[in-house]
Amino acid sequence: MSDIRILTEDQLRDRLTLDQAAVDVIENAFATLARGGVVMPPILSMHMPDVNGELDVKTAYVPGLPGFAVKMSPGFFDNPRKGLPSTSGMMVVLSSDTGRVQAVLLDNGYLTDLRTAAAGAVAARHLARSDARRATVFGAGLQARMQLQALRLVRPIDQAVIWARDPDKAATLAQQMTGQGLQVSAQPDPEQAARFGDIIVTTTPATHPILRADWLRPGQHVTAMGSDQAGKNELDPHCLDRADLYVADRIGQTRLMGELRAALEAGIFSGAGDLPELGDIIIGRHPGRTHSDQITIADLTGTGVQDTAIATHALAAFSKDP
Amino acid sequence: MSDIRILTEDQLRDRLTLDQAAVDVIENAFATLARGGVVMPPILSMHMPDVNGELDVKTAYVPGLPGFAVKMSPGFFDNPRKGLPSTSGMMVVLSSDTGRVQAVLLDNGYLTDLRTAAAGAVAARHLARSDARRATVFGAGLQARMQLQALRLVRPIDQAVIWARDPDKAATLAQQMTGQGLQVSAQPDPEQAARFGDIIVTTTPATHPILRADWLRPGQHVTAMGSDQAGKNELDPHCLDRADLYVADRIGQTRLMGELRAALEAGIFSGAGDLPELGDIIIGRHPGRTHSDQITIADLTGTGVQDTAIATHALAAFSKDP
Repeated sequence: MSDIRILTEDQLRDRLTLDQAAVDVIENAFATLARGGVVMPPILSMHMPDVNGELDVKTAYVPGLPGFAVKMSPGFFDNPRKGLPSTSGMMVVLSSDTGRVQAVLLDNGYLTDLRTAAAGAVAARHLARSDARRATVFGAGLQARMQLQALRLVRPIDQAVIWARDPDKAATLAQQMTGQGLQVSAQPDPEQAARFGDIIVTTTPATHPILRADWLRPGQHVTAMGSDQAGKNELDPHCLDRADLYVADRIGQTRLMGELRAALEAGIFSGAGDLPELGDIIIGRHPGRTHSDQITIADLTGTGVQDTAIATHALAAFSKDP
Repeated sequence: MSDIRILTEDQLRDRLTLDQAAVDVIENAFATLARGGVVMPPILSMHMPDVNGELDVKTAYVPGLPGFAVKMSPGFFDNPRKGLPSTSGMMVVLSSDTGRVQAVLLDNGYLTDLRTAAAGAVAARHLARSDARRATVFGAGLQARMQLQALRLVRPIDQAVIWARDPDKAATLAQQMTGQGLQVSAQPDPEQAARFGDIIVTTTPATHPILRADWLRPGQHVTAMGSDQAGKNELDPHCLDRADLYVADRIGQTRLMGELRAALEAGIFSGAGDLPELGDIIIGRHPGRTHSDQITIADLTGTGVQDTAIATHALAAFSKDP
């Protein structure tokens, strides 16, 4: 058992940050997914109503990578009352050669935060206008912060606004994020907020739409990353109809738990057969945005291939240690 | 992260054995499953054909237990060529209150071996004749050994025969198991082997039946525990028809990956709607065996509730340690 590497959250936070390398790793994961050969089973989901908890388990096997990750993501929604965050979790990395456990990453959700933010950067890199300077973020949680940081890795963002249900949280985050060439302000009017950004990122746990279709303007790119369960919904279903291009991280997932689900249920969107995935655009199988005035939407629900990619990346970062 | 308990295979082997307490824990798990309230999602299964590997992930939430387990069971079938066992794996225990990781059990499959053998004991305790003294084991692997040990915890077994595809392995195991009031011999003729036992346990990875229905005799109990995937099949489908009572660990699973699957596919067995589960018999909702001449079959595919039960049991065994 001595060959199993155990890494704590502190060790992982010290060594890994949201940087270009992390974005490239996630971009490559989506490309590999598009090229085929990746095995990514449906998410195992367990609901525990009597303790107001849920557990998701994701995994994916990516040919060519030395290991594959199994990620456990619990969400226990009474935790805040106990002074704990709702979500936590960890990953296990198993050898692609033998199935033996290689590493236990006690990241407490940190690697998920990283790979989720990195996916936002990948979506913006391939779908947002190259001259995008203004960002709008819906939500004021951890991903609001990280998505904004992620955008700056791929686009020359120098102004941002934040809308959140709680205006105090939006103001606090705006203040914290301002600096290093970035001006951030809170915007209490969601319509004004929406109209501002060249890129809009929605990062809320909303179960009813917070972004209306008639607020969108030509040239915008929207990344919706809050919805990762069938009950969640951030975009007015008409947004998908309004957009020139809808892109999923994984169609099979967004159909069940992304913005696509809500649009399909509302009967507004019918072209679900031919929709591209983010990887199709990365590898050039789909042209993506073809005009600076187009409206594009990326619907990100989070995939096991991202987890395997970030876990492999993390292990590689420690591979030279004794 | 310092409050996460990490236990190695050696530690777990030192502290936990196949004993009455383990059998009781698994019996109680089946009873809880039958009483309701347990949440047990379908198994997450991933096949990696290019490396001849597979991964199963099981979990179950059992109200009243302090934690729930997520178990990863890889099977990599080229491992023996590399001098490694095909199967390995580990469990993670999460808090039922907060979802936080409580423990990482690097058991390398040991706890699965324990809970699988214990389930065999539970099945025999509730379905075999109380005067059963003779056991027949098909297979000569680790579970062949453990199932025989398990039977001795619940029935006065003093004679056993072993049949295996490889007669040398059967002979070796018979020799090793003989002693402490038990006489074991290898039996190269599977029909003779089948006729011998008051209890028959099949523990093989067979994909074609190894036990024929016309070999069964009144009064026997059969536990089929080898099949845990859709491609496996140990019992001639007519066995289920021949038996007076068929009992599943979990009908939803045996229908997909147990002996029931093969019988349903063969069109031989039709009463799948009203079949009892092992827990129904434990809690007295179903009478189980009602006559010593009846033939009973237990179809065990392995359930997440067993994993949560054995993991909780393991943690409790270490709870007094610093």
